[in-house]
Amino acid sequence: MAQVTLFVGSKSDVESVRPVLATLDRFGVSCHPQVCSAHRAPERLKELIQQAEAGGTQVFICGAGLAAALPGAVASHTGKPVIGIPLASGALNGLDSLYSIVQMPPGVPVAAVGINAAANAASLAVQILSLTDPALADRYATFRREQSSRVDSFE
Amino acid sequence: MAQVTLFVGSKSDVESVRPVLATLDRFGVSCHPQVCSAHRAPERLKELIQQAEAGGTQVFICGAGLAAALPGAVASHTGKPVIGIPLASGALNGLDSLYSIVQMPPGVPVAAVGINAAANAASLAVQILSLTDPALADRYATFRREQSSRVDSFE
Amino acid sequence: MAQVTLFVGSKSDVESVRPVLATLDRFGVSCHPQVCSAHRAPERLKELIQQAEAGGTQVFICGAGLAAALPGAVASHTGKPVIGIPLASGALNGLDSLYSIVQMPPGVPVAAVGINAAANAASLAVQILSLTDPALADRYATFRREQSSRVDSFE
Amino acid sequence: MAQVTLFVGSKSDVESVRPVLATLDRFGVSCHPQVCSAHRAPERLKELIQQAEAGGTQVFICGAGLAAALPGAVASHTGKPVIGIPLASGALNGLDSLYSIVQMPPGVPVAAVGINAAANAASLAVQILSLTDPALADRYATFRREQSSRVDSFE
Amino acid sequence: MAQVTLFVGSKSDVESVRPVLATLDRFGVSCHPQVCSAHRAPERLKELIQQAEAGGTQVFICGAGLAAALPGAVASHTGKPVIGIPLASGALNGLDSLYSIVQMPPGVPVAAVGINAAANAASLAVQILSLTDPALADRYATFRREQSSRVDSFE
Amino acid sequence: MAQVTLFVGSKSDVESVRPVLATLDRFGVSCHPQVCSAHRAPERLKELIQQAEAGGTQVFICGAGLAAALPGAVASHTGKPVIGIPLASGALNGLDSLYSIVQMPPGVPVAAVGINAAANAASLAVQILSLTDPALADRYATFRREQSSRVDSFE
Amino acid sequence: MAQVTLFVGSKSDVESVRPVLATLDRFGVSCHPQVCSAHRAPERLKELIQQAEAGGTQVFICGAGLAAALPGAVASHTGKPVIGIPLASGALNGLDSLYSIVQMPPGVPVAAVGINAAANAASLAVQILSLTDPALADRYATFRREQSSRVDSFE
Amino acid sequence: MAQVTLFVGSKSDVESVRPVLATLDRFGVSCHPQVCSAHRAPERLKELIQQAEAGGTQVFICGAGLAAALPGAVASHTGKPVIGIPLASGALNGLDSLYSIVQMPPGVPVAAVGINAAANAASLAVQILSLTDPALADRYATFRREQSSRVDSFE
Repeated sequence: MAQVTLFVGSKSDVESVRPVLATLDRFGVSCHPQVCSAHRAPERLKELIQQAEAGGTQVFICGAGLAAALPGAVASHTGKPVIGIPLASGALNGLDSLYSIVQMPPGVPVAAVGINAAANAASLAVQILSLTDPALADRYATFRREQSSRVDSFE
Repeated sequence: MAQVTLFVGSKSDVESVRPVLATLDRFGVSCHPQVCSAHRAPERLKELIQQAEAGGTQVFICGAGLAAALPGAVASHTGKPVIGIPLASGALNGLDSLYSIVQMPPGVPVAAVGINAAANAASLAVQILSLTDPALADRYATFRREQSSRVDSFE
Repeated sequence: MAQVTLFVGSKSDVESVRPVLATLDRFGVSCHPQVCSAHRAPERLKELIQQAEAGGTQVFICGAGLAAALPGAVASHTGKPVIGIPLASGALNGLDSLYSIVQMPPGVPVAAVGINAAANAASLAVQILSLTDPALADRYATFRREQSSRVDSFE
Repeated sequence: MAQVTLFVGSKSDVESVRPVLATLDRFGVSCHPQVCSAHRAPERLKELIQQAEAGGTQVFICGAGLAAALPGAVASHTGKPVIGIPLASGALNGLDSLYSIVQMPPGVPVAAVGINAAANAASLAVQILSLTDPALADRYATFRREQSSRVDSFE
Repeated sequence: MAQVTLFVGSKSDVESVRPVLATLDRFGVSCHPQVCSAHRAPERLKELIQQAEAGGTQVFICGAGLAAALPGAVASHTGKPVIGIPLASGALNGLDSLYSIVQMPPGVPVAAVGINAAANAASLAVQILSLTDPALADRYATFRREQSSRVDSFE
Repeated sequence: MAQVTLFVGSKSDVESVRPVLATLDRFGVSCHPQVCSAHRAPERLKELIQQAEAGGTQVFICGAGLAAALPGAVASHTGKPVIGIPLASGALNGLDSLYSIVQMPPGVPVAAVGINAAANAASLAVQILSLTDPALADRYATFRREQSSRVDSFE
Repeated sequence: MAQVTLFVGSKSDVESVRPVLATLDRFGVSCHPQVCSAHRAPERLKELIQQAEAGGTQVFICGAGLAAALPGAVASHTGKPVIGIPLASGALNGLDSLYSIVQMPPGVPVAAVGINAAANAASLAVQILSLTDPALADRYATFRREQSSRVDSFE
Repeated sequence: MAQVTLFVGSKSDVESVRPVLATLDRFGVSCHPQVCSAHRAPERLKELIQQAEAGGTQVFICGAGLAAALPGAVASHTGKPVIGIPLASGALNGLDSLYSIVQMPPGVPVAAVGINAAANAASLAVQILSLTDPALADRYATFRREQSSRVDSFE
């Protein structure tokens, strides 16, 4: 039972998305992270998505590099919100994955965050889950207030 | 009382985001569209956001071109999910607004959809609102099933 | 029974890939064109691929714009060669689809041709099929010789 | 009382803009550097701008990376000239911040300098302030003459 | 006697910069527009700059496309602020001129505005000139207030 | 006698394409690797292509950086399928070679894979050769099944 | 007997390079224009180059779009200077041909001019030929003086 | 008395263009290298160009990064061929200097070589000078033959 399911397509992407886990944990949101490639194991991906939905997942987060089909493939199998994190890997340094994730065709949206912006993907999930969870909304509002009131000196 | 508040920064962006209204209407989601520039009227924008939240808005959608500060500015004033639509206007044809919208700094996320992808922004809002509204979730699931089962001939 | 199966993701892409049919027809290669979206109808796409393979398809050609997941999705379900045609549609004018098609992850290749290069996709399929069909190889060699010997005047 | 107010959005940008301070100091122009994010602390930013103007600031310089909303946000709250320095940070290496800073909408200009060009931002501020300060104009003219007459050998 | 001197490099750029004249005129700022190429007539350009300075010009505005050397060439001959407007012309649609104008080397800054942003170049000049002209500052502040308070309806 | 001939244009590209050899070897496909520049030795390249075809080569793979004329030059001299690997070298980091390889003119196709995607080039060759070699097709199908069924844990 | 040989790869590029002929004609430089594709007719191209050199050609000018191998292919067969004109055709609008032409490997240079800059290619040829032809040098110097002294009014 | 004059705009560019000297020296072509900025010392640059022409310079080579005005500025003061080398420096890694150098306006051409392609700039100068120097032409032809006949083994 996890509120958020996190997917990456390969073991090599795990480190890039660890801030998703840290950020969700900070807000007390449960997350089930998994490794499954949309291109190499499309059938298994579909099953994992169905299991995640059966287990109560409300939001999917997917980190992907290069052609970055993972977020869109997840979105093709669920009606829940899917957040895509373009990962910088390879010669195009994330421009390829940004375009692949954000330029979804009509009818199947993905919510893109910035290249390598794993923490922001988690924050966006928290914002979405806060709509149905007043206590979480309070924790997030407190975080934002603290963030606003923190004053850094230049020196 | 609108579930979604839609912002554009100038009158010239209104036509580009009309599919937001059509799509939300199709799913029975109420939307309040408004014109307010983040750069030319930052104070008014802040007030409109506060009024929107007071009126029950759960999701913000913002269409913006060029430097496209609007989605981020809205996100800086609310903890609700903010969906940004990069609009193609000017010589860079939306690449500028895509980067400006998607590359948000840590702590204040925006959910970017594709360039000019107004209908997908609305679909994403429907997915988010469906988490708290089973009837809406049903309507959206029906739409997705119809979409999946529709067969187009090549000729 | 078609040697080549041609996929596009939506009706709006049909015109862009018509040169595939014309070129294959010129060389006497049979082709079954179909419209099916990887994102909107992933299950149907999988079935169509299985039917195509059962019907003798040796090469797949897929035209796709924007996030352009179609060629990769087809490649994830077959071991036959998949040729991807990035289509210019939307504000990024095919750069998005080029990156999405060509930057496939290790293990699941797609053969990319140029943006909107539908005729060249067909020529590549002819080259591949010629490896097993000496008569086709002869027709293709004749075409290449004619192409080489054709002299255009500048005026 | 500072002639120039320098803003960066986060502590991590401080080193990138230090040449602003060094260059202004060389010409005897006073500068008040501060850290304040347009997205995380929009209210505080507005207050700091008002304090700066009350304190005599004639020119604002803002260094920002990624979506780089800071220069535009400052420009939305003041009528004084605002100079924006796009900072290279993250996968797009400053292209995102360049576009975000330079592509301002009609009515609210920002003066963009090159990516990471902190010293040139300060030089531009000196040029602007020289219009009202003949002694500063002389110091700047001397600098330019020295720069012109300096001969570097190739070896 | 003109407060602003406006340069374009060729007759074909005149229409693109006309909003400079209209905007400056609205604020009562005098402007002398001239056509002179940095590459085709470098000597004449230098003389025109010297005449402009002798005639009281405080700010230069230069519109240029392609390699767009004009703003930098003007900056190399004056210590007054130089505002560069990248013009979209040719196949790269202003990206070439943006880079050429904004990426100035250390010591000789140019203030870049957006591609084709002629009106904003004039507004920036007004902001700069307002530092020495309280009446102009008042007119500009009034314009900004009107701009802020103008409310456009969505329909 | 080699089923695949692999070309690179210079010694400095050898390391980048070694995965071609490793992957082909894994599937028992023979490969003859050679160094020959399309620009520096066009006559020798033509001879090597003719020798390769005489020796039974069915597929050519070419790795090239910068202007990357090699795959197209090979394709101009053969009717066999030519797979091009854009190599990241120099300041444009493979974007130049990607465009040069993929944007072939009508009539002479090249099958492009991703930047530096040497292993995928070999996989594509295996897919093509599998059309005429059932035993190879079996080995490739086994590889794909293993790839699909391999489950990586996130931790 | 022509001092300059002009190549384009296809009939469709003829109009784009006509300014080469007009400019060379203005300076009394003879030019032989021909249509020959580097990819479709590599053998014929080589013969035409040899004939051109035998006929006294001192400079080659090549216009090419897309992968734009023509200038490099000509340079691989001659030691005379080769000027390449990237032509804007297709979805990448000349960026592909610019990179393909300018990023030549060590040892075989091509002199690139701007995208579609046919007249400048001819001017460059005139500059080169002027080194051996004082009368031509005089005509070119006169042209440059006229160009410098021509004064366009803004209105 | 130098056949070639080499300019860079700052001391920091000297190392990048050293291959110009090595290559010209190999062919026995004399070269006078100098450091002079087009933006910081436009008057001195003009004088150096006039001295170079008086001293017999037939070809200018200019290496420049960022806005890279140097080659165009040299071309504006001479009718001799000017070869520009875009240097990769700063965040845009030479894309800025490539565009600035190659996209010259009509009437004043620059011959661009690849980013950081200093040796090729020298080779191009050798090709140009060979038109008037049969002995140099012979040395260059010998170099090209050696280059063509050199066979590198893959291992």
